[in-house]
Amino acid sequence: MKRSFIREILEHTTNQTISFAGGLPNESLFPYEALRDSGYRALSEPSSLQYTTSQGYRPLREKIAEHYTKQGFPTKSDEILITSGSQQALDIITRYYHSREITIEAPSYLGAMNVFNLNRLEQSAVTLETDGIDIDGFALSFQQSKLAYLIPDFQNPTGLTYSEEKRRAVAEHIENTGGILIEDSPYSELFFERSYPSISSMIPEQSYHLGSFSKVLAPALRIGWIRASEPLLQPLIPYKEAMDLHTNSVAQRIIADYLSDTEAFQRHLETLRSSYGQKMELFAKALDEFLPMFQYNKPKGGMFIYGSLDGISTSSLVQKCLQKDVVFVPGREFYLDGSIDNEIRFNFTNSSEDKIIEGLQIIHSVL
Amino acid sequence: MKRSFIREILEHTTNQTISFAGGLPNESLFPYEALRDSGYRALSEPSSLQYTTSQGYRPLREKIAEHYTKQGFPTKSDEILITSGSQQALDIITRYYHSREITIEAPSYLGAMNVFNLNRLEQSAVTLETDGIDIDGFALSFQQSKLAYLIPDFQNPTGLTYSEEKRRAVAEHIENTGGILIEDSPYSELFFERSYPSISSMIPEQSYHLGSFSKVLAPALRIGWIRASEPLLQPLIPYKEAMDLHTNSVAQRIIADYLSDTEAFQRHLETLRSSYGQKMELFAKALDEFLPMFQYNKPKGGMFIYGSLDGISTSSLVQKCLQKDVVFVPGREFYLDGSIDNEIRFNFTNSSEDKIIEGLQIIHSVL
Repeated sequence: MKRSFIREILEHTTNQTISFAGGLPNESLFPYEALRDSGYRALSEPSSLQYTTSQGYRPLREKIAEHYTKQGFPTKSDEILITSGSQQALDIITRYYHSREITIEAPSYLGAMNVFNLNRLEQSAVTLETDGIDIDGFALSFQQSKLAYLIPDFQNPTGLTYSEEKRRAVAEHIENTGGILIEDSPYSELFFERSYPSISSMIPEQSYHLGSFSKVLAPALRIGWIRASEPLLQPLIPYKEAMDLHTNSVAQRIIADYLSDTEAFQRHLETLRSSYGQKMELFAKALDEFLPMFQYNKPKGGMFIYGSLDGISTSSLVQKCLQKDVVFVPGREFYLDGSIDNEIRFNFTNSSEDKIIEGLQIIHSVL
Repeated sequence: MKRSFIREILEHTTNQTISFAGGLPNESLFPYEALRDSGYRALSEPSSLQYTTSQGYRPLREKIAEHYTKQGFPTKSDEILITSGSQQALDIITRYYHSREITIEAPSYLGAMNVFNLNRLEQSAVTLETDGIDIDGFALSFQQSKLAYLIPDFQNPTGLTYSEEKRRAVAEHIENTGGILIEDSPYSELFFERSYPSISSMIPEQSYHLGSFSKVLAPALRIGWIRASEPLLQPLIPYKEAMDLHTNSVAQRIIADYLSDTEAFQRHLETLRSSYGQKMELFAKALDEFLPMFQYNKPKGGMFIYGSLDGISTSSLVQKCLQKDVVFVPGREFYLDGSIDNEIRFNFTNSSEDKIIEGLQIIHSVL
C-alpha cells in the first residue's frame, strides 16, 4: 500500500518547515484550557475508564443528534455512530460496501481514495465545476455505481461549495435511482458567510452524513461520527466492533462535557470562522503579491485555497521547495490518474502571516 | 456480519445485571486520580491537540520499547506501532495478511475470530491442552498456513498458560518453517506468581507481539500496540493511516505521562496481581461451594476461570440466566464450529464477593 503524500510529509517536516500541506487547524485557536477542564471532569469517576458500547457514549450521541435537529435535520441519538475520526467512518462504510463501484469528485480527498482502494472499490471520478459536481457526468456514473462520495461544503482539496441547485439536483437523482450517498462534511461549520443545507437532509433514508470534531475542536481527540437512518446505520455496528470495539470514551466524554456549554462552543465556532476568513483573505492577498501567476478562486469556507500554475509541474516544484523547507500538496495527488500536474492545494489556516509571506516568496524563487 | 455475543450482552445488561461475561477490569482498581492528573498535564499545551504521526506518539513508543528491553527483549521505539487497542492491532495485521490461512487455538478469543472473518482469513483451529497448544496439531496446521494467532499467557477464554517447553517448541517450529506468529499478550502482566518469556522474544524477526493498556490501566483509553521488527512493522503503517490516520494522541500522552512515574506503575501492577489473585481464589471457592458440578483448573493469571458442566447446554443455560439478570459467556462462542456446548467462561475480576455468590447461586437454581 502507498503512503499518503501528506502523512509522509508530516513525518519529515521539522519545526522549521513552513507547511501549507496538511489540513491542520490553527493550534492557537484550540480551546485547550476548556478542554483540559472538561478532561478533568470527564475523569472524575472510575467508571469513565471502563469499556463502553460500540455505538458510542450516549450523551455525546444525544448532543450531536440535537445539533442536527436544530439545523432542521431531525435526528435521534440512535442514528449516530461515533467513530475514530471521519477517516474511520469512511473505512467502516466502504468495508460494508467493499468491491462496489463508487462515484467520487475529481479532484477528491486523498485519504478517502486510499481507504476506498483498501476496500477494493472501483472509483469513478466526475469533474468538479465551480458550483459543484458536473450533473450530467454524475448521473452517468451514478446510474452504474449507485454509490457516491461527495464533499459539498468547502471541498477538500478545492475549497469549492455546491450551489443549492446542484445539491437539489444530486439529491433528486439519488432519490430517483435508489442509490446511496456518503456526504463528508468536516468543514461545514467553518463557513465565512453562511452555511448550506446538507444533501443528506434531502434524502435522509439514502445517505450517510459524516461529521468530525477534528476541524472545529481538536484533531488529537479523533472523534467523528456517522449520521444515518437506523436501517443504514445498524449493519455498520458489528464492523465498528470488529475493528476496535469502541471509540476512546474518555475523548467522547471530554467532548460531551465541553458541548454542554452550548454558548461557549458557539462563540468558539464564531472565532474560528472569523479568524479563518481573515486568514484566507491574508493568504489570498499574499498570493496576489508574491505568487501572482497562481490562478485561483477564493473559497467560502474551510481550510484550503486551490488553484493552478500554468505550465508548471507542481509535483516537481514541491520537491525543490522541500529542500528549502517549504511544503504544499501538488494537485496531482488528488486525482485518480494523476493526469493533472499544474495544481496546488494551499492550507491557509496553520501558518502565521510572516511564514505565509516567507513561504510564498520561497516558492516563487524556485519556480 | 454477526455481532459478538459479549458486546451485544454489554448493550443489554443493566446496573442490576450480575455479569461474569465481559473481560472487564475491576473499576475500583483503576488509578483514575493519577490518570486524571496525567490528563491535566497532557493537555497543558495547545500542540497536544494537533494531528500527529500515524506510528504513534514517540515518547510513549520509547517507554514501551524500554519496557521490552528491560524484560530481556531488546526493542527500539521504531519497532512499536500504537493502535486503538489490541483489537485494531489484530485488524491491521490481518488486513495485511487478508485471505490467507491462519492457525488459531481451539477455543480462542472471539474478537479475533470476528476480525479474521472480516479479513477473509481461513481459520484452522488446533486443540489447546493444559500446557499450551497441541504441538503435533500445530505443526500440521502451520505447515500449511505459515501464520498463527496464539495467546500463550492466561489465555482468553481458557485462562491456560503455555509451559516453557511448549513456547520453545512453537518458536522452533516457526523458525524452521519460516512463517509468522501473531502473539496476543493483553494479560501477560496480570500473573499471580510469575511471568513467562514471550514466544516472540525467541523469534523476533518472525513475530508480531501485541500489547495493551486496556487490562492493566484503562480500557476506555483504547491504547494498544504492535511490537515487530521494522521489516514487518513498516508495511503496516499505511494501513493504520488509511484506517484512522492515527490513534487518539491525548490518550497516548496521558499514558506516557502516567508511565513516567515507573514506581507508581509497578505498584499499581502489583496491586492488580494480588487483588485479582485473591479474587480468583474467592471465585474458585464460591464455585466449589455453590456450583460444585463445574469442572475447571485454576488459572495462573489473567481474568477468566474456564471449565465445563457435564451434560449441560450452556448456551441454553445462559438464556435462562439472562432472565434472572445473571450472565456469562457459553464456551460455544469461542469455537469456530460451535460444536462444544458444555463449557463456560467466567470473568472473576469485575464482580464483588456478594455478587459472585449471588450469581452462582442463581445459575445453580436454573440448572
